[in-house]
Amino acid sequence: MSKKRTVFSNTEYHRRIAKTRRAMGDAGIDLLFVTDPSNQNWLTGYDGWSFYVHQGVILTQDGLPIWWGRYMDMLGGRRTCWMEDEFILGYSDDFVQSTERHPMQDLARHIIDLGHSGARIGVEMENYYYSAKAHAVLAAELPNATLLDATALVNWQRLAKSEDEIAMIRRAAKISEKVVHTAIKRAEPGMRKNDLVADIFHAGISGVDDIWGDYPAILPLTPSGLDATAAHLTWNGDEMQAGEATFFELSGCHHRYHAPLCRTVFLGTPPPDMLEAEKAQIEGIEAGLNAARAGNRTCDIANAFMNVLTKYGIKRDGRMGYPIGLSYPPDWGERTASIRTEDTTVLEPGMTFHFMPALWMDTWGLETTESILIKDTGPAEAFCDMPRKLFVKP
Amino acid sequence: MSKKRTVFSNTEYHRRIAKTRRAMGDAGIDLLFVTDPSNQNWLTGYDGWSFYVHQGVILTQDGLPIWWGRYMDMLGGRRTCWMEDEFILGYSDDFVQSTERHPMQDLARHIIDLGHSGARIGVEMENYYYSAKAHAVLAAELPNATLLDATALVNWQRLAKSEDEIAMIRRAAKISEKVVHTAIKRAEPGMRKNDLVADIFHAGISGVDDIWGDYPAILPLTPSGLDATAAHLTWNGDEMQAGEATFFELSGCHHRYHAPLCRTVFLGTPPPDMLEAEKAQIEGIEAGLNAARAGNRTCDIANAFMNVLTKYGIKRDGRMGYPIGLSYPPDWGERTASIRTEDTTVLEPGMTFHFMPALWMDTWGLETTESILIKDTGPAEAFCDMPRKLFVKP
Repeated sequence: MSKKRTVFSNTEYHRRIAKTRRAMGDAGIDLLFVTDPSNQNWLTGYDGWSFYVHQGVILTQDGLPIWWGRYMDMLGGRRTCWMEDEFILGYSDDFVQSTERHPMQDLARHIIDLGHSGARIGVEMENYYYSAKAHAVLAAELPNATLLDATALVNWQRLAKSEDEIAMIRRAAKISEKVVHTAIKRAEPGMRKNDLVADIFHAGISGVDDIWGDYPAILPLTPSGLDATAAHLTWNGDEMQAGEATFFELSGCHHRYHAPLCRTVFLGTPPPDMLEAEKAQIEGIEAGLNAARAGNRTCDIANAFMNVLTKYGIKRDGRMGYPIGLSYPPDWGERTASIRTEDTTVLEPGMTFHFMPALWMDTWGLETTESILIKDTGPAEAFCDMPRKLFVKP
Repeated sequence: MSKKRTVFSNTEYHRRIAKTRRAMGDAGIDLLFVTDPSNQNWLTGYDGWSFYVHQGVILTQDGLPIWWGRYMDMLGGRRTCWMEDEFILGYSDDFVQSTERHPMQDLARHIIDLGHSGARIGVEMENYYYSAKAHAVLAAELPNATLLDATALVNWQRLAKSEDEIAMIRRAAKISEKVVHTAIKRAEPGMRKNDLVADIFHAGISGVDDIWGDYPAILPLTPSGLDATAAHLTWNGDEMQAGEATFFELSGCHHRYHAPLCRTVFLGTPPPDMLEAEKAQIEGIEAGLNAARAGNRTCDIANAFMNVLTKYGIKRDGRMGYPIGLSYPPDWGERTASIRTEDTTVLEPGMTFHFMPALWMDTWGLETTESILIKDTGPAEAFCDMPRKLFVKP
């Protein structure tokens, strides 16, 4: 009945759990309740489109992690988690979207049964899938427990990837190359944007040889012209126009691992200020990659890029990258370190980032980005092999 | 600069706001802060893949709604919201994923500036995008305000659709027919599941004639065999097998409106118990549609279906449908009424549901469902035109 679909070895999962337990110990947390679907998957392998109901992983300093979710999703848990069936718990369907009952009442009962009613319990306060209501109910049901904010505690453990994870990102990168290549090749005046996105999806999900395509945590962003000055508009049925730039913010995905890659295409003759910005951006990326070395800090990458921009007289604010790897919608960033001038995270071998020094101007946007790997020595490696330039189609 | 992409007339938005204000008055709410992206869109038109950062709509009893979000997304707000630019507010990028600052500090400042520091403020406590942390910060920043749980207050106003909305769902339904048809036609032994999903995506996003395809709020669910007993597993690169059932849980989407449609395909000769279940399911759906009349209740639909199942000696628990329309990931349900035996919501003309009496058994799953419209008189109308049966491909 219970044919396992687990992705990594048990050794890999035990490594992750040991790392997380050390962080729990440092934070004085007895029991961690993990809501972030990426963190759940990272610790247990759980994978399903079920994060729209309450579910999570219970981890203490002893024994194995427990996956807890809707009764209906226990079967998916048994298939995808590395632990045996007894570590998969389910709550009944009358807790789902009820105004009288809340799933956190069921969770609290399990925590009490586990002997942790008075524990110091870590919860992910700043997470899409841990609602204000869930927190209020859990606190009310566990009056003797102390609830502590453990936001990003697991995420930080994910920052430096294992060899197995890096191999998975390399596979995702093959798909990323294919989708960006498809987008650039198919873009032309008169092409409806949704038809272009249909081709992008087809390329990404069909994948490359045995690297089947999983769904990326962010859908294809492909804005043109004025829309490209607004960072997060999605497509509609409008036709692509001559004289407009379109940026493609895309990622392949394999077993939930991502390698985002952005390129920009211009249909016609780009304005001179855009060509100047292209030069600055490419030179800045090279400087950034060179600064992205083990022992340096995230801000060193940002500063290296900004120094080049300053030389070209271009102004830019904000973040220019974030860690990537395992993820679920609505975001493929890991939400820990940032590549920005104020961030001082020390780079270690195995860390992976989307280095994304996009330029959003008043009338156009220019995105040329790389997913990168921090190496033992030397500059960072770009996961994808794709010419780093503004693609011009006359 | 600010070319509007608004979908509905201002009259339609004013209708929605008037309805919401009445509900706010009934609940004693002075100021409503709306986090649910579907509710934001329904009130203001805002549409963008930016709900992974804090954003929302502020609505009081006076003036126009205000859309508030990340500075970078203000441009998208100006393009997609029906209100003028002065009603679009942004917070600076150093609030984003910061451990020192929180966007709710910026929101609180605006609420104070609007003169509502001591107001009764409604917040959506049970929502993916209103975190436990956001609530804690907002409460701390507004010590004189009273925060009230307004979960689903706007969602309930969305239950009965306007003519314009029904027209949009009809357009989405055309795409739903196409994607389910594509899935059934392409399914065959040896077909890799991800290649099938690639074709489904392509069919859905390319759309039907001028009905361009938007991204559905739930990705294609297409589990086969044992996987089909687990409700929410997503695809991988495995090949489809002879002798297995696969169910397709799919929806077309147009301007964020959905019309979910599920069908099941069997490759080979279905087992007798599945054919018996098929008969019961189809007869039950017909009974349910006939009970889905204005003036009846949601439980009448559920009971009509269950009576047929009982006659066939089939056991089933849980919910069998939910309202649908405008939505964003991770769920296309509206999270208000349910089609279940305990729910007594009175049906009104214009209400739209995904009537989903799926049967998940020990070794197979059978999904045959309809998106339905409650009419002024007579039984409900199915939005899609698709034979209601188990599709068998020998």
